[in-house]
Amino acid sequence: MSQITQPTLLLDEQKCRRNIESMAGKARRSHVQFRPHFKTHQSHEIGRWFRESGVEKITVSSLKMADYFAQDGWNDITVALPVNILEIETINNLAKRIRLNLLVESAESVRSLNSGLSHHVDLFVKIDAGYHRTGIAYDNLPMIDSVLTSIDQSPNLSFAGFLTHSGHSYNARSSSEIVTIHNESINRINVLKKRYADRYPGLIVSVGDTPTCSVVDNFSSADEIRPGNFVFYDLMQLQIGACRADQVAVAMACPVVAVHKDRNELIIYGGAVHFSKEGLQEEAAGTIYGCAVETLPQGWGEPIEGMYLKRLSQEHGIVHLPDEFFDRYATGDVITFLPVHSCLTADCVKGYLTLSGQHIDRLI
Amino acid sequence: MSQITQPTLLLDEQKCRRNIESMAGKARRSHVQFRPHFKTHQSHEIGRWFRESGVEKITVSSLKMADYFAQDGWNDITVALPVNILEIETINNLAKRIRLNLLVESAESVRSLNSGLSHHVDLFVKIDAGYHRTGIAYDNLPMIDSVLTSIDQSPNLSFAGFLTHSGHSYNARSSSEIVTIHNESINRINVLKKRYADRYPGLIVSVGDTPTCSVVDNFSSADEIRPGNFVFYDLMQLQIGACRADQVAVAMACPVVAVHKDRNELIIYGGAVHFSKEGLQEEAAGTIYGCAVETLPQGWGEPIEGMYLKRLSQEHGIVHLPDEFFDRYATGDVITFLPVHSCLTADCVKGYLTLSGQHIDRLI
Repeated sequence: MSQITQPTLLLDEQKCRRNIESMAGKARRSHVQFRPHFKTHQSHEIGRWFRESGVEKITVSSLKMADYFAQDGWNDITVALPVNILEIETINNLAKRIRLNLLVESAESVRSLNSGLSHHVDLFVKIDAGYHRTGIAYDNLPMIDSVLTSIDQSPNLSFAGFLTHSGHSYNARSSSEIVTIHNESINRINVLKKRYADRYPGLIVSVGDTPTCSVVDNFSSADEIRPGNFVFYDLMQLQIGACRADQVAVAMACPVVAVHKDRNELIIYGGAVHFSKEGLQEEAAGTIYGCAVETLPQGWGEPIEGMYLKRLSQEHGIVHLPDEFFDRYATGDVITFLPVHSCLTADCVKGYLTLSGQHIDRLI
Repeated sequence: MSQITQPTLLLDEQKCRRNIESMAGKARRSHVQFRPHFKTHQSHEIGRWFRESGVEKITVSSLKMADYFAQDGWNDITVALPVNILEIETINNLAKRIRLNLLVESAESVRSLNSGLSHHVDLFVKIDAGYHRTGIAYDNLPMIDSVLTSIDQSPNLSFAGFLTHSGHSYNARSSSEIVTIHNESINRINVLKKRYADRYPGLIVSVGDTPTCSVVDNFSSADEIRPGNFVFYDLMQLQIGACRADQVAVAMACPVVAVHKDRNELIIYGGAVHFSKEGLQEEAAGTIYGCAVETLPQGWGEPIEGMYLKRLSQEHGIVHLPDEFFDRYATGDVITFLPVHSCLTADCVKGYLTLSGQHIDRLI
C-alpha cells in the first residue's frame, strides 16, 4: 500500500481467479458453452486467466473491444450489442481475421449489414424475454420470421441462434426472485428454439447475466452463458445476493485529504471520475457510492458497517464515518472502498494494481 | 457528421469561445482576477483559447492536471482540492517550475507539507461558507487562527488568502436563489478578510462556481473568481438557469442501433461510459441522462421537447421518442444529445471533434 499516492483500483488476483474458475466449473457441470463477457475487465492479462480455465470464446460490448481482444489471440467473439452498421469497416476488418458473431433485431439491419460485408459473419437474433431494453419481443413471431428470412437471403450471413439478456434480474433482491426471472426467460426463449429447431438444427440459445449465473446451479436448458460482472463482483451484486463480500475482487484505494470530526466525515481524493456516478440505494444510508473495507496487510477485509461514500464530486468524495471511528483516520492515510458497479469503475481507471504490486493494463 | 461512426463528443468552438470571452469580460468589468477552473475541458488547445482572452492564471483539481497544463506553459496554477500530502514528489516537481498554490484546511496538513517541501508554495485556506463539503467553517476562528499560525511557522509556505466554493448554488433553481447564496458566502468570507487584513495585507478572497459567476453581474466584493463548467455548460446549468440552450458548447453524437416503435424508443450506441451516469431530475420525464437536439448542417440546434435519454447501460442508451417522431429515425442515423454534466462527460471521452472536423486532445 505504500506505493499508493492516488486513487488506485486494487485487484485481488486470487479472488478474481476463484470467481473465474467457479463460473467455468459451473458451466462445465451444466454442459453449456461458457462465453464470458469481457466488458467488465477489458484486460488482455485477465483474459488470459480465463484462457487458463479453458475459455475459448468470449463476449464483448463494442467492436473496439472485439479488436482489442482479437489482438491477443481470441478468435471467436460475440459483440452483444445491436450491430452498429456505421462501423462496417471495422466489422469487415475483424470478420476477415476471426469468427465474428453479431447481434441483430431487425430485417433492415440484416440487409444493410449484408450489403456492406466482404466477409462472413454469424448472427444472433436478440430476443426480449422480459427485460424490455433491446430485442424483438419473444412472442412477436412475424418479426422474428422476417428477420430470419432476411438472414437466409443474405449470402454473407448465417443464423447462429437466439440471444437474450435478463437484465431485470438486477432488480431482484433474493435468490428465489432471480430463479423465477431466469425460468421465465429461458422458457420463453426455448419455445422459440423448439419452433425453429427443424429449420436450423444447430441453433443455440445464449443467456446469462451475473445475478442469474451466480444463483442458478444448472443451466442445462440453455446452450451458452455469457455473464461478465462476476469476474470482480461489487456492492450491487452483494445487495442482489449474487455474491458474498469476500468474492468482490476489486477495491479502490484512496488517500484521505481532510478530516471533519465535527460532522463525522472524511474527504478523500477519489471522486466520480474514479468510481463512476453509479449509486446504490441502501435502507439506512440512502444513496451510497462505495463502502469502506478494513485494510489488511495482504489486501482488504470485511466491509465496515456504516462507513460509506455518501457524496462524489468530480475528483473527491465524502466519507461518512461511524461514531466510534471518530479518531481513527488522519490526512495521508489510505482507505479502501468496494465499488457499487465494478464494470463502470473499472472503465474509469487506466489499469489495475494487484496485491502483489503488479500493474495490469486494460483497453484505453 | 459523415465521419461519425461511434459516440463522439462534438465541440462548437464558436459557442465555447463566446462563453470564455463573456466570462473574461465580466471579470474585467468587475476588476477581479479571472482564474478559470480547467477541470471541465482538460485540454491544452482549449486552454490556449483562454490565453487568447487574456487569462494567465488557472485552477485545476489534481496535481496530474497541474502537471499537464504546466507542460503547456501555464505557470501560476491553483490546485483547488485539499492537498494530498502523499503526492509530495509531484508537488516538489511542480513547485520547482511554476508558482503553485495549494489548499489546506488543517494545521496537520500544513506541517506535513512544510516538512516535505523542497520549494516554496503558496497556500489558500479553504473556508466552508455554507456548502458543507470541505473547508473550515467560516466562523471557526480558533481553527483558522491555528492554521494561519502553522503557515507562519513554515519557511516553505506563504499564506495567499481564503478560498471558498459555494457548490450549493447547484441546488438553486432561480437567479434570485443563486444571488442570495452568493451574497451570504461572500459576506461571510469578507468578514474573515477584514479580520486578517492588517496581518496579511495582500490576502485575497477567491470564490466562484459556474451558477454564481453566470448569474451575478458584479464580483467586486471578491478578488478572484474560479468558474469552470461555463466553458461548455450543460443540461444541469440550463435547469439551474445559469445558461441558455444555445450556450451549451458540447454535444454527444451517437449512432442509432435499434428502433422500437412499439414503445417509442430508440437504442443508441452511447452509454454510461460515454455520458457518465450523472442523472437530472425532470418534472415530466423523471431522471434523464441527456436531451436530444436538432441536427443542423452546421452543428446542432434546439433541444427537442420530450426526446431524452431515459436509461443508460454500460455501452448503450435508451432514447424516449415523442409520439410524432414515430417514423423519423432508422438504424444507422446519428442523433446528438446535450449532456447532463459536461465535466463528467468530457472526462469519459478521449477528446473532442469540432464542427469543422478538427480533433482536439485532452489529458488522458
